[in-house]
Amino acid sequence: MEKFEVKAYGAASTTADLKEINISRRQATDEDVEIDILFCGVCHSDLHTVRNDWGGSIYPSVPGHEIIGRVTKVGSAVSKFKVGDLAGVGCMVDSCGICPSCKKDLEQYCEPGFTGTYNGKDKHLGGHTFGGYSEKVVVKESFVLRVPENLDPAAAAPLLCAGITTWSPLRHWNVKEGDNVAVVGLGGLGHMAIKLAKAMGANVTLFSRSPEKEKDAKELGADAIVISTDKQQMAGAKNKFDLIIDTVPYVHDVNEYIPTLTISGTIVLVGYLGPLEPMLNTVPMILGRKSVAGSVIGGIAETQEMLDFCGKHGIVSEIEIIKMQEINEAYERMLKSDVRYRFVIDMGTLKG
Amino acid sequence: MEKFEVKAYGAASTTADLKEINISRRQATDEDVEIDILFCGVCHSDLHTVRNDWGGSIYPSVPGHEIIGRVTKVGSAVSKFKVGDLAGVGCMVDSCGICPSCKKDLEQYCEPGFTGTYNGKDKHLGGHTFGGYSEKVVVKESFVLRVPENLDPAAAAPLLCAGITTWSPLRHWNVKEGDNVAVVGLGGLGHMAIKLAKAMGANVTLFSRSPEKEKDAKELGADAIVISTDKQQMAGAKNKFDLIIDTVPYVHDVNEYIPTLTISGTIVLVGYLGPLEPMLNTVPMILGRKSVAGSVIGGIAETQEMLDFCGKHGIVSEIEIIKMQEINEAYERMLKSDVRYRFVIDMGTLKG
Ligand SMILES: [Zn+2]
Ligand SMILES: [Zn+2]
Ligand SMILES: [Zn+2]
Ligand SMILES: [Zn+2]
Repeated sequence: MEKFEVKAYGAASTTADLKEINISRRQATDEDVEIDILFCGVCHSDLHTVRNDWGGSIYPSVPGHEIIGRVTKVGSAVSKFKVGDLAGVGCMVDSCGICPSCKKDLEQYCEPGFTGTYNGKDKHLGGHTFGGYSEKVVVKESFVLRVPENLDPAAAAPLLCAGITTWSPLRHWNVKEGDNVAVVGLGGLGHMAIKLAKAMGANVTLFSRSPEKEKDAKELGADAIVISTDKQQMAGAKNKFDLIIDTVPYVHDVNEYIPTLTISGTIVLVGYLGPLEPMLNTVPMILGRKSVAGSVIGGIAETQEMLDFCGKHGIVSEIEIIKMQEINEAYERMLKSDVRYRFVIDMGTLKG
Repeated sequence: MEKFEVKAYGAASTTADLKEINISRRQATDEDVEIDILFCGVCHSDLHTVRNDWGGSIYPSVPGHEIIGRVTKVGSAVSKFKVGDLAGVGCMVDSCGICPSCKKDLEQYCEPGFTGTYNGKDKHLGGHTFGGYSEKVVVKESFVLRVPENLDPAAAAPLLCAGITTWSPLRHWNVKEGDNVAVVGLGGLGHMAIKLAKAMGANVTLFSRSPEKEKDAKELGADAIVISTDKQQMAGAKNKFDLIIDTVPYVHDVNEYIPTLTISGTIVLVGYLGPLEPMLNTVPMILGRKSVAGSVIGGIAETQEMLDFCGKHGIVSEIEIIKMQEINEAYERMLKSDVRYRFVIDMGTLKG
């Protein structure tokens, strides 16, 4: 298969910093879209993959799955994109297409597993896939998203992961105007959850341990903040929330939020992968028909729906633009939650 | 308030056996129905309450919340019952009537708490409520159920708790014809879950550790059994079940069932109240949008719906009839799961 070289930023091993390397991209096939990458958001998964925190990382590791760029080439069978269009690529670049999940537009739950934008199995060139910390990417049309031209392309980049990760549960659990939605954690995911839920017409509350988050939360659209360490405030929120989106990425006590769910309410975990410690107590779940659920990103059609919604409502992420060369420093700052609320790499700085 | 004495069977303390005692019932008010109790099912909650396993038990303790009897008196405002009707009383005899749950016919989730048929606060006579191990009971019309005359009244008694406890999640999670439903545990609740899910048109599977349960499960209507300790069988059930009703009443590992849920599927715990040990792992929940939920009994309207459904489909519980005087022995057998599948007390033996 024909290919070409592009500059990228990647890590050679678990302990290596990211630096400039060259990688190959396939020449666009009939079904492919070639994209010149303008901006790439920086997700916690990037960091975890580069450092092999979850195991299974393949090197060199070139992360990045919040990609926004301009279409530079389209295959002969491509109908939805033309050269010059603003396009996006999220966490997936392919899936089996035939399993029950794929048939239902739930490619994120593809039974044999979707092809990750990075660290996935490259079906075309062999080896593994490389993400958006690179000059260009070539992706099958059906996994490329249309990005509304009225959105700032840099600030739209995080919609491709942080946006859809919070949009999907808001939609799946059917949030409607007037519903009470709470968000746990105010980071890349949390701030998008607030913006999206608010634009859907929900009353939005942020749970936080820090009273000083109130101003920011309200500027993002939250109607209220509940200090989760304040017993009285927590008691005041009893039976209140139809849905809680829990974006906290580390182990934490989910039990404290259960009583604040309405009867038949659900808390959806989107940030933390691992055992729930302390142990989940079934008593308030049973006595209030409450659910604890999980959710990961969203399907392609749903991602398009979210982007169109964001275009209509003028919603983008709050970002801090960095140069490609600042990525290692940015990772250190992310580890200290020192970012409001998402780093986005200006990929022009790689092209130099 | 006027009252009268009836014979009952109750425990004087945490450690006492149940024996014959006298209790008071109120004279039926305008809104009440007086019922001569024919049969009363024996629920695990009866045993736990008598022995104060959950704390908060009040003595003398007269349990019993699977009550079937004949109406012997109705108040002047009663319109749905007349003397001679077959009537049932389940786990609740009252609720606040004005909270959001009560307004939605979800009295089981009444926010200030429903009035339990036993061990609840008696709003009329003061003190605490006494259950169905007694000659008669007097209950507010709106908490009395109509029992289809075509059902065997003894075998219908367990529908009032075991039946509705499994019916409510089957309905709330919208089980329909052709859905795949699994049941964990084959006791009083589990055997009703199989019968009800099957009659709804679902394909029903029993999870069990004991291969010898297969014959019984199939006789009850199950299509298949999966031995939960058999890794190969569990792998074969991957992504299969739209809903799992977990009726196991003691602490057990829920994690093993999560992979057998379909994408977006739910496992509902109806039997075990307490911390989930081992810890629940969020990974398969997030990567498959799977939910862990709880559910308790059901609302009054929903209980009537279930009884009508059972009347139409000729569904009753599998029971072993005992004399009132055999109750202490029956409790010991229940602790060893030595019952297929529900003890029902012939209350004629108390009147004797
Ligand atoms: Zn991400
Ligand atoms: Zn698939
Ligand atoms: Zn019961
Ligand atoms: Zn109420």
